[in-house]
Amino acid sequence: MANYHRPDVKTSQELRDIANKLRILSIKATNASNSGHPTSCCSMAEIMSVLFFNTMRYRIDAPRDASSDRFVLSKGHAAPILYAAWAEAGLFPAEELLNLRKIDNDLEGHPTPRLNFVDVATGSLGQGLSCAAGMAYVGKYFDKASYRVFCVIGDGESAEGSIWEALSFAGHYHLDNLVAIFDVNRLGQSEPTAFQHKMDVYQTRLTSFGFNTYVVDGHDVEALCKAFSDAALVKNKPTAVIAKTFKGKGIAGIEDAENWHGKPLGDKAEAAIAAIEKQMQHKGPWTLRPLEPKEDAPKVTLDNIRLSEPPNYKLGEKVATRLAYGTALAKLGTNNSRVVAMDGDTKNSTYSDKFKKAHPDRYIECFIAEQNLVGVAVGCGCRGRTVPFASTFAAFFSRAFDQLRMGAISQANIKCVGSHAGISIGEDGPSQMALEDIAMFRAIPGCVVFYPSDAVSCERACELAANFQGIVFIRTSRPNTPVLYGNDESFAIGKSKVVRKGSGDKCLVIGAGITLHEALSAADQLQKQGVSVRVLDLFCVKPIDQAAIVANARECGGRIVVVEDHYPEGGLGDAVCSAVALERNIVVKHLAVSGIPRSGPSAALLDMFGISSSHIVKAVQEVLKV
Amino acid sequence: MANYHRPDVKTSQELRDIANKLRILSIKATNASNSGHPTSCCSMAEIMSVLFFNTMRYRIDAPRDASSDRFVLSKGHAAPILYAAWAEAGLFPAEELLNLRKIDNDLEGHPTPRLNFVDVATGSLGQGLSCAAGMAYVGKYFDKASYRVFCVIGDGESAEGSIWEALSFAGHYHLDNLVAIFDVNRLGQSEPTAFQHKMDVYQTRLTSFGFNTYVVDGHDVEALCKAFSDAALVKNKPTAVIAKTFKGKGIAGIEDAENWHGKPLGDKAEAAIAAIEKQMQHKGPWTLRPLEPKEDAPKVTLDNIRLSEPPNYKLGEKVATRLAYGTALAKLGTNNSRVVAMDGDTKNSTYSDKFKKAHPDRYIECFIAEQNLVGVAVGCGCRGRTVPFASTFAAFFSRAFDQLRMGAISQANIKCVGSHAGISIGEDGPSQMALEDIAMFRAIPGCVVFYPSDAVSCERACELAANFQGIVFIRTSRPNTPVLYGNDESFAIGKSKVVRKGSGDKCLVIGAGITLHEALSAADQLQKQGVSVRVLDLFCVKPIDQAAIVANARECGGRIVVVEDHYPEGGLGDAVCSAVALERNIVVKHLAVSGIPRSGPSAALLDMFGISSSHIVKAVQEVLKV
Repeated sequence: MANYHRPDVKTSQELRDIANKLRILSIKATNASNSGHPTSCCSMAEIMSVLFFNTMRYRIDAPRDASSDRFVLSKGHAAPILYAAWAEAGLFPAEELLNLRKIDNDLEGHPTPRLNFVDVATGSLGQGLSCAAGMAYVGKYFDKASYRVFCVIGDGESAEGSIWEALSFAGHYHLDNLVAIFDVNRLGQSEPTAFQHKMDVYQTRLTSFGFNTYVVDGHDVEALCKAFSDAALVKNKPTAVIAKTFKGKGIAGIEDAENWHGKPLGDKAEAAIAAIEKQMQHKGPWTLRPLEPKEDAPKVTLDNIRLSEPPNYKLGEKVATRLAYGTALAKLGTNNSRVVAMDGDTKNSTYSDKFKKAHPDRYIECFIAEQNLVGVAVGCGCRGRTVPFASTFAAFFSRAFDQLRMGAISQANIKCVGSHAGISIGEDGPSQMALEDIAMFRAIPGCVVFYPSDAVSCERACELAANFQGIVFIRTSRPNTPVLYGNDESFAIGKSKVVRKGSGDKCLVIGAGITLHEALSAADQLQKQGVSVRVLDLFCVKPIDQAAIVANARECGGRIVVVEDHYPEGGLGDAVCSAVALERNIVVKHLAVSGIPRSGPSAALLDMFGISSSHIVKAVQEVLKV
Repeated sequence: MANYHRPDVKTSQELRDIANKLRILSIKATNASNSGHPTSCCSMAEIMSVLFFNTMRYRIDAPRDASSDRFVLSKGHAAPILYAAWAEAGLFPAEELLNLRKIDNDLEGHPTPRLNFVDVATGSLGQGLSCAAGMAYVGKYFDKASYRVFCVIGDGESAEGSIWEALSFAGHYHLDNLVAIFDVNRLGQSEPTAFQHKMDVYQTRLTSFGFNTYVVDGHDVEALCKAFSDAALVKNKPTAVIAKTFKGKGIAGIEDAENWHGKPLGDKAEAAIAAIEKQMQHKGPWTLRPLEPKEDAPKVTLDNIRLSEPPNYKLGEKVATRLAYGTALAKLGTNNSRVVAMDGDTKNSTYSDKFKKAHPDRYIECFIAEQNLVGVAVGCGCRGRTVPFASTFAAFFSRAFDQLRMGAISQANIKCVGSHAGISIGEDGPSQMALEDIAMFRAIPGCVVFYPSDAVSCERACELAANFQGIVFIRTSRPNTPVLYGNDESFAIGKSKVVRKGSGDKCLVIGAGITLHEALSAADQLQKQGVSVRVLDLFCVKPIDQAAIVANARECGGRIVVVEDHYPEGGLGDAVCSAVALERNIVVKHLAVSGIPRSGPSAALLDMFGISSSHIVKAVQEVLKV
């Protein structure tokens, strides 16, 4: 290619020396921690050396700089060599590497954003490329900036379907600022990979997924320099550099050998280091420095994002919360140009299509690939570049549980909105019904879980979500339900609403979403029987409004009935039981979907599976005896 | 190909007539239910006609027959045409189809094994092929039988990474008895698919994944007959039939048009049906009948599977439960030749490699692709052909949450064994720590969740799992822990064990796995302070031993401390709170991992995140005041 200049002899030698230095530091660090993956580091030493000392444009003193090239280590278990690269680049002293995996040090076994040079946590394999693709999408289409995104993927982890979702996404959207580097070192954890060194298998697959591909000797610094340089000139296609490497490269007796995954060298380290040092002409300090980034990424403000117009409903009007989501999302996008949305080909069901219509340039169609949907959202949200709202049927977020789990470790700022919650969806049947989604999102550390019951509270939940730094889940319902709140009602994270209250309330009934409306109907029926109950709209399942629940339950004879359109485990019932666990004299009767549901009309299913108003009436009558 | 005989003119016409009849029945059924997917049915009408009336060998009167060809409808939303095919084949009257999606009928919106002609539930997209691949693996390698497995996949759902995991698996294991049919009808739910009718994209991708491929006109019955026949002669490769089709084929004004996904025809149905009928020469009954299967699948017995030898440990001996799992699994395999195992390249960590060493022909390496791992297990387990044990790090089962969710609807008989539970794994850090796995498996309806605390109980949990019909999760730990039970101790589903008991016990401490040992240590410390506590090994988290918990708690002043190596939500604490929810005068103090953990030594992490013996001591002291 025209502008490629082969590195001079001195540069090439220094890149080789740096690679070997990174090997040595990886061996030393894992020996110091007595755990970790030196062999997985050694296969990618030249890749790291070339990227960090020849290819990438970045600021050593500002790793999260908006305009700098990004690096994602999808094979997170090779963390020691990532740490070594930043140390050798000058971010911190190399001696610090000997604190690898110590409890008081952020150089953990796998990278997390506790380190300022890590954008997304990795270590659960196959996830880094989706995040990198999200970052590249932001760079190309939203930031319209020069920075490139590099992602190193292990050959073992390339068996993960999420990698192929991400590849297809990157190819489809022509992410020519993305370089996926496959470190094909032939060996997995417990045996050789399926395709070992069959480089043609990788190349034909990657070509078919829309990539410009180079097969290179991954230990040849000049070949790597050329591939990364050439890739920059290829327009409208992402590039895959498929690097043939050897696990444990450079360590005699261990290179390319089985049974050395995840094992420090122990007493073999000294000789190995001495042998590697013999290959080096210099041991540093290095003359090579990264090029400065082009400062062309725009400044971004994500503060105080508001609905451009307040909710506009009439009390009692019937509106599905999923529709209110679409309305709110479009308004948030009007207010802030960095609110973006993505969906998995369900936008006409989740109503994210209302955002697409209002802000077509900020909608990303991710097609039916939910792992990548969430990974792209994590990538879009990192470094404060956007506030991403990702939507699909709530049931299908279960596809991305591992991405969400890692998202929490990544300190991700994403908003997940799942429609079609529970059996109330009706005829489509159990495969489409989210009945374990609250259990899933509750278990994500720090995640806020909203379950709005009407259009007004749903719009406000969206607004609260946009301004909360972290993962938020909003559960929306398919059926139309009456508007319960005035347009000026205010809502807060962790706060419930008492929607019905009398002086002689005998029981506190807690619901959310569809079951809140059943609870209100049950309250009417009970009133006719002379039994007054209080009804609480939980609104925010996590953090739960413990104080209000305890106080109201005490005022209602210490009796709670909680009812949810969800399986019995991990949802509203568990949350409420847990909230009152340290209270003597509060009892909880729990109604939830009592088995695997089936196709049928919504109301009939609520009754058949035990969560309709008549079941609530019965439950209250029973709990009055306790 | 040599033995292919083009169908005669009469046969071809009948196949076309049947295809059109299936269209009509799909239109009528979805109109009757006023919901469903007639257009997704119409694109695959000829595929169904040819498979069910020309290609497949099966018994109409015995749909689960061991030797019959299998059919998996991965695009489960096209259920009406599956039902129509079986009706036209003669399994039940076609009028029954008008009960589609009714609450008292098993012809649900998406297929489930409530119907005897459905092996695995579908409807969450991208999952059917993994199940089909598992069935094909059983057919080729375990049954060594002639039956073939056919799976129809939508083009939209082929964006799911799980499809590519399954394709790679099928190619790697040369599953030449598997035919994957891609119904490329160009249109997704909310817009055209990424690749529309670019048949070359599908073909190059599928070829690169190890498939023999045919691109055909999916509405040409003769081309389909030939492709399926030719595929039978291709050895060592699975076949992909890539069918170019049109969504809504045959319905004027709707064929190939957007905005007709999942919509019945309503008042357009009558004219559409009349137009289709005009294309038909006959309307049935049909002269074509399926060929008989070759009766060469062996009989299988899965009853009373036992450890071939009892546990053999010494009290106090330190053995990791993950190691005991490997030992038990090998013994179960010795006892019953239909116990099989599979893993995601972690077999030297989960110790499933002990099974591989003992029974190499019954171990399936699934590489790092956990969605497919679980899907293959579901396929292996269906129709009572095997009892599959699937293992990986417990954290990585989160990758397959949707497969597990669908597994419950599939009535799957699979045993999931997850190692490396919780922060007790130590230095690898949070990405490798399962801290939400119990929340996930508890939320699966009917799933049994074991969390053994020593080697003896772990071996027995495996034995119980093998004999339970359904999904089981066994959570194993990485560290070595002392053996607590004699080799002859007996265990049961839903039963806990009191492991320490005194006369004046003031508090019931509940633990499992690593925390049970912390609880025992805390009990020793408290005893020195003059406080006697009872300790309960929960063993089975679901179903939970409610009776024992309530009875023991009452005997301990109504005080419980529950401690778990898991995030606070959805695990042991929620389960225990829920079990005592209707008891006045029982309080529960809950200790769980209090935030996102980090790398560090196991014991130090237990202390830092609040679940060590010293925290239990403190919690007991606090709860004594309540």
